[in-house]
Amino acid sequence: MAAIDLNADLGEGFGVWSLGDDEAMLGIVTSANVACGFHAGDPASLMRVCRLAAERGVRIGAQVSYRDLAGFGRRFIDVAVEDLVADVVYQIGALQAIACAAGSTVSYVKPHGALYNTIVTNHEQAAAVASAVSLADATLPVLGMAGSAFFEEAARVGLHTVAEAFADRAYQPDGQLVSRREAGAVLDDPAAIAQRVVTMVSSGQITAVDGSPVAVSVESVCVHGDSPGAVQIATAVRDQLEAAGIDIRPFC
Amino acid sequence: MAAIDLNADLGEGFGVWSLGDDEAMLGIVTSANVACGFHAGDPASLMRVCRLAAERGVRIGAQVSYRDLAGFGRRFIDVAVEDLVADVVYQIGALQAIACAAGSTVSYVKPHGALYNTIVTNHEQAAAVASAVSLADATLPVLGMAGSAFFEEAARVGLHTVAEAFADRAYQPDGQLVSRREAGAVLDDPAAIAQRVVTMVSSGQITAVDGSPVAVSVESVCVHGDSPGAVQIATAVRDQLEAAGIDIRPFC
Amino acid sequence: MAAIDLNADLGEGFGVWSLGDDEAMLGIVTSANVACGFHAGDPASLMRVCRLAAERGVRIGAQVSYRDLAGFGRRFIDVAVEDLVADVVYQIGALQAIACAAGSTVSYVKPHGALYNTIVTNHEQAAAVASAVSLADATLPVLGMAGSAFFEEAARVGLHTVAEAFADRAYQPDGQLVSRREAGAVLDDPAAIAQRVVTMVSSGQITAVDGSPVAVSVESVCVHGDSPGAVQIATAVRDQLEAAGIDIRPFC
Amino acid sequence: MAAIDLNADLGEGFGVWSLGDDEAMLGIVTSANVACGFHAGDPASLMRVCRLAAERGVRIGAQVSYRDLAGFGRRFIDVAVEDLVADVVYQIGALQAIACAAGSTVSYVKPHGALYNTIVTNHEQAAAVASAVSLADATLPVLGMAGSAFFEEAARVGLHTVAEAFADRAYQPDGQLVSRREAGAVLDDPAAIAQRVVTMVSSGQITAVDGSPVAVSVESVCVHGDSPGAVQIATAVRDQLEAAGIDIRPFC
Repeated sequence: MAAIDLNADLGEGFGVWSLGDDEAMLGIVTSANVACGFHAGDPASLMRVCRLAAERGVRIGAQVSYRDLAGFGRRFIDVAVEDLVADVVYQIGALQAIACAAGSTVSYVKPHGALYNTIVTNHEQAAAVASAVSLADATLPVLGMAGSAFFEEAARVGLHTVAEAFADRAYQPDGQLVSRREAGAVLDDPAAIAQRVVTMVSSGQITAVDGSPVAVSVESVCVHGDSPGAVQIATAVRDQLEAAGIDIRPFC
Repeated sequence: MAAIDLNADLGEGFGVWSLGDDEAMLGIVTSANVACGFHAGDPASLMRVCRLAAERGVRIGAQVSYRDLAGFGRRFIDVAVEDLVADVVYQIGALQAIACAAGSTVSYVKPHGALYNTIVTNHEQAAAVASAVSLADATLPVLGMAGSAFFEEAARVGLHTVAEAFADRAYQPDGQLVSRREAGAVLDDPAAIAQRVVTMVSSGQITAVDGSPVAVSVESVCVHGDSPGAVQIATAVRDQLEAAGIDIRPFC
Repeated sequence: MAAIDLNADLGEGFGVWSLGDDEAMLGIVTSANVACGFHAGDPASLMRVCRLAAERGVRIGAQVSYRDLAGFGRRFIDVAVEDLVADVVYQIGALQAIACAAGSTVSYVKPHGALYNTIVTNHEQAAAVASAVSLADATLPVLGMAGSAFFEEAARVGLHTVAEAFADRAYQPDGQLVSRREAGAVLDDPAAIAQRVVTMVSSGQITAVDGSPVAVSVESVCVHGDSPGAVQIATAVRDQLEAAGIDIRPFC
Repeated sequence: MAAIDLNADLGEGFGVWSLGDDEAMLGIVTSANVACGFHAGDPASLMRVCRLAAERGVRIGAQVSYRDLAGFGRRFIDVAVEDLVADVVYQIGALQAIACAAGSTVSYVKPHGALYNTIVTNHEQAAAVASAVSLADATLPVLGMAGSAFFEEAARVGLHTVAEAFADRAYQPDGQLVSRREAGAVLDDPAAIAQRVVTMVSSGQITAVDGSPVAVSVESVCVHGDSPGAVQIATAVRDQLEAAGIDIRPFC
């Protein structure tokens, strides 16, 4: 039977501020990319979301980021390699202790925001993140984009890489995402998105923006929960996958 | 043969800013209370000091603090218990990963600054810190003041407590420190301080400000390294202990 | 004709995070206590809220706070006087430039959260805040609680003080607020709250928790906008004041 | 008589951490580029350095930066224009209030570190900084590099631009600085540097790395004070300028 993991970003509030509906998402996904305090996530709310994840059997991943609360980790920062390595090790360790205190453990690492985007192509920062994961715990898989500089560098240091697709993003014929700056880059119809994910998981193919088929072989699909509409889409994805008889389970 | 541990605060710079002479102190102490990023300590400099500590066989302790870079953790903050527990767990985990990446491990926990002072008497925050250590790793000993609320709460949750004395502080007849606001609270003559520490370690007694003897049974002595004068005092303490045939070794 | 000012806290998001419905509140209040970046408020969102306030003729006040994003300024911090003075001057100046760039100006100062509560009784911090306002611009009035240490210290340095009441809080017979820890401290019925404010403004009296009348002479009433329910209450207060023929206008 | 301004970065500590010898530099320079809290500078130390500058008649400039304490503002950040404008306005206003409380005023603006370097060529961020200065106070001159995108954008919005040279940096034949990555980019001999500055000020020419003369017409020369060696160089520069009969006075 076909199987897939669903992942989403969680724990992305800070202090009095919340973002998204963590509780709802923990009923949908099998892997929670939990913020580590550098772009979001004060320790007490990280503890709460890790406890909920532990209760519901959702895997916890360390969603590591540039140090940038004001920019939510969405701005490229030209961090020196030595600093980036240490920043990522620090974040993984912090979340490991929080997850452990919450009765669970960190099962994987997924970079966030601008760091995620940067290391699709920037080998220096990609190698820094890979090195950091390796230093923190070389058995941790990394979640990211197939074909990225990050995956190349992660493989070089012996990390296990897990490829993900984005439920609501349009793809180019070469398998890359359509840039958010272009029209049609982000899909918004729940039923269409859900159907697309089912097709992707069951056939390993997806239709690119030009109508051509593109192979997308993934072990996890990323869904969002930062708005009521996003939760509705994630719910539709989960429902359609279940209706299609696809097993939804953690990749690790 | 009598033995004693020497501990000092290290890794207390932040980014471009440094504080104290970490390298010199790592040649003197056997236990390094390494900052965890909340009052000081960017990850890259924590990594560097942990590597040096590992190379020299100096034990690493997590020097946990209130979240207060601007105040260097020296200002009381009325943190809610749930937040303080999570803040301390987060810091311990962060330093554990850094220490591990540096080839060592976190061997104990010592609260810093205003948090240290607060939990001498404040049972609520003391219990929060004890609970946090217990959640992060219940085998970690805590370093602090004998007779403190912190030690009481730590013992209550089964933590091992390690009592320290301060090389350069005057004591009251009841074993408490003379407040820094009073004249004579802080000693500054290297030879006198060193002799005082030797007496304390070999006899278990120290002379209080009123001339009376006070029992001070400790497993570690705290020295400072935040100024050239402080390093000179710490050197004198180490030299005199060695001259007196006292073994200087980690408490753990 | 009787007149009253309505004030509320605005601009209390940070980066990606928002809090409350600033747009709705700017249609209700005449004075906006705008965050200054220490407990909330990244500069770009402060600029946006100041532009909106300027467009709608709502006065802007500097809502100064302890430096504590993680705690939203709600935790007492034992800041040294010299630091608190400079922190408050810095915040006022920052918001002055933002307000000026937005086509308005800072018209008053109101302390936030734990700082507000602390200086009801703590004369040292109260004097620090008063001194800071005086240094930044001695013509700025301060908004706060009648009878507070803050008002005493503000008057001592020649600042104009403007007393406010809280629309949704129960009062003791001596005019102090009932502590939030006690049942009934916070009122939640929009119609009852609105009626209470009308009575307070038109008669200068309010009914204390024990049923006795208590004199409450205020120039401004604080309403909240941090939840849909809060906006509804604020709307009811404004509507009832208007229905009672009371002029709603800025105190300055 | 020829005249020149000497400028240096000051107020670049944070809380317990200090950087450079502000007191010594205030006896050397005529313009102090004072940090504004985003890369360095807690309000209380900014107040202290502004008071000293006021006492000694040294002009105060707002040294605005990316928000990056951990990186000391030395890392490029891909900030959105709207955010950068507001960040710079905020910083200028904060320092204006501090300077005013210290008995002085902000007389100019000079970007710091990575922001300075970025807007030599990046027109989008250059325009954002120019716009911010214009919004905060359109009469403030900006200090920077002749021929930069920043000066072009500043002129476009009507700001007065003041060109500076760097005492200790080698120049290319086209008047650009030799990159720090190349050997010989930074000069370190006090006497040679001082002589070079005298020549530059009196003749408007300097010798480029290839031996060719290059025109360097500046109103200010930047010296450093972040190490004992740097203070020695700055002292030599001032002494040689005075010996050559060149008047050292603020550009504004």
